[in-house]
Amino acid sequence: MKVHLECIPCLLRQALEATEMSSTDVAVRERALREVMNYLSNIYWDRTTPELATYVHRLIKKVTRNPDPYSQLKKIYTRAALEVYPKLAAIVESSNDPLLIAAKFAIAGNIIDFGLRTDINLEKEISDALDNDLAINDIDKLRQVLLGPKKVLYLADNAGETVFDKLLIEELLKEKAEVTYAVKDAPILNDATFQDAEVAGIVKFAKVISIGTDCTGMLLRECSPKFLEAFENCSFIISKGQGNYESLSDITQKKIFFLLNVKCPIIAEDIGVKTGSAILKQTGALRSFP
Amino acid sequence: MKVHLECIPCLLRQALEATEMSSTDVAVRERALREVMNYLSNIYWDRTTPELATYVHRLIKKVTRNPDPYSQLKKIYTRAALEVYPKLAAIVESSNDPLLIAAKFAIAGNIIDFGLRTDINLEKEISDALDNDLAINDIDKLRQVLLGPKKVLYLADNAGETVFDKLLIEELLKEKAEVTYAVKDAPILNDATFQDAEVAGIVKFAKVISIGTDCTGMLLRECSPKFLEAFENCSFIISKGQGNYESLSDITQKKIFFLLNVKCPIIAEDIGVKTGSAILKQTGALRSFP
Repeated sequence: MKVHLECIPCLLRQALEATEMSSTDVAVRERALREVMNYLSNIYWDRTTPELATYVHRLIKKVTRNPDPYSQLKKIYTRAALEVYPKLAAIVESSNDPLLIAAKFAIAGNIIDFGLRTDINLEKEISDALDNDLAINDIDKLRQVLLGPKKVLYLADNAGETVFDKLLIEELLKEKAEVTYAVKDAPILNDATFQDAEVAGIVKFAKVISIGTDCTGMLLRECSPKFLEAFENCSFIISKGQGNYESLSDITQKKIFFLLNVKCPIIAEDIGVKTGSAILKQTGALRSFP
Repeated sequence: MKVHLECIPCLLRQALEATEMSSTDVAVRERALREVMNYLSNIYWDRTTPELATYVHRLIKKVTRNPDPYSQLKKIYTRAALEVYPKLAAIVESSNDPLLIAAKFAIAGNIIDFGLRTDINLEKEISDALDNDLAINDIDKLRQVLLGPKKVLYLADNAGETVFDKLLIEELLKEKAEVTYAVKDAPILNDATFQDAEVAGIVKFAKVISIGTDCTGMLLRECSPKFLEAFENCSFIISKGQGNYESLSDITQKKIFFLLNVKCPIIAEDIGVKTGSAILKQTGALRSFP
């Protein structure tokens, strides 16, 4: 998905938020915001929005000299998610369709990319996730591929959401899948890094690898050879969140299951669902990825 | 009120909207948006937000070569307001407190600065305006000043809202006030010009003058000597909308009645009310200006 004009003011809103997370000094925030605007007004926009967002967040880290602006928030998210985890695991365990319920929770974890919202009602999000149908539900296609080779590459999204991913990973393991969990090489936005995956307890269930760079979404041309090899050699991909969808939705060479909550109207239009929808959507063929 | 960092992404959102109103050519829209960002990133921000917005909207008019991007929308607003006018006039006429009801409707007209919303439920807005109390209600101060000299300078806001202003102007006339209605010299955003005041029928009730420039809100240093004389010599001012509030809230030399709906959280905080509040707030002394 290429950037739309509507994404530019939204990027600036995100940039403002990131400057607020990065520094308490209003002059520093202003300098960072100015640099972002100057930068955005001078580069080509024929890219994906996560690519532009990557440059924006790197610039903010540089100008504010804060390498991990969302550090505190990521810890809060993860702690909140860990607290609720045993309850969710019990619900999955006792359900008639553990794979679907675990997938629904993994998607609900993507709601809990709450940005700066700390007022989120986790209990309500969870019960909504259980009650509401997925707007696109390709769970049977997931069941289908789990009958064949199952080297799964799981693309993480945010810290905290990682805890919810564990539920789905556990179900994949029950199907004898081999799961590789890919995280960012360094902090950017609230994206999960190795450390975040470790705190969430993912390392006990999956091999955690770095994609080799710090980007929002997925910027394949910057990724490490090791990650690209995992990308090419996996049987299929599970991709979490909007950023990964925007980055990879045009890839047809690889079978990808996109699990996300659609929070943005541009993405909603692209997918053909309403804003607020939870989706599990499979795209791509089974051909190998160059 | 000086600009807050939060205003910058919001200005860019408004700029995007204005480019969409100005041109159907996405390349032209993109060029305008880039120029706005480049401009904003390079000027001092120690100004009011309406001053920055003025430069932004002028730049968009120039780049897109569209001198009146909101022309069509202004006509739609005005027509919708004129249709509902007789009903409102009858409600004011039959009420126990025509001045308050007319003021409430004039403020409600400021809700109907609906931006790009065409789905607004006018009937509902009107009945809400009647039912809901003003969050700040200085109507008795207005009654008080109407006992003294009453050369009123009425600062218009948007086209369409002008029709609602007529109701309040009629009540002021009943109090033997002499009303001068000040509009923008040329189109900017959806602000009322002489032509808009004429279509709304204001000219039958008040002397309509131009402020001498095209700005959002009020940029006194650009206004014409004739307008500044009216500003100085009036007994008090009625100021409509957020832009005029942001522009004039720091002026203490003149008694100003601000009538507005508070749609922006920054302004809400400045005034000390909730977003969504309708207010009639008097500020300033009786000393002459400046």
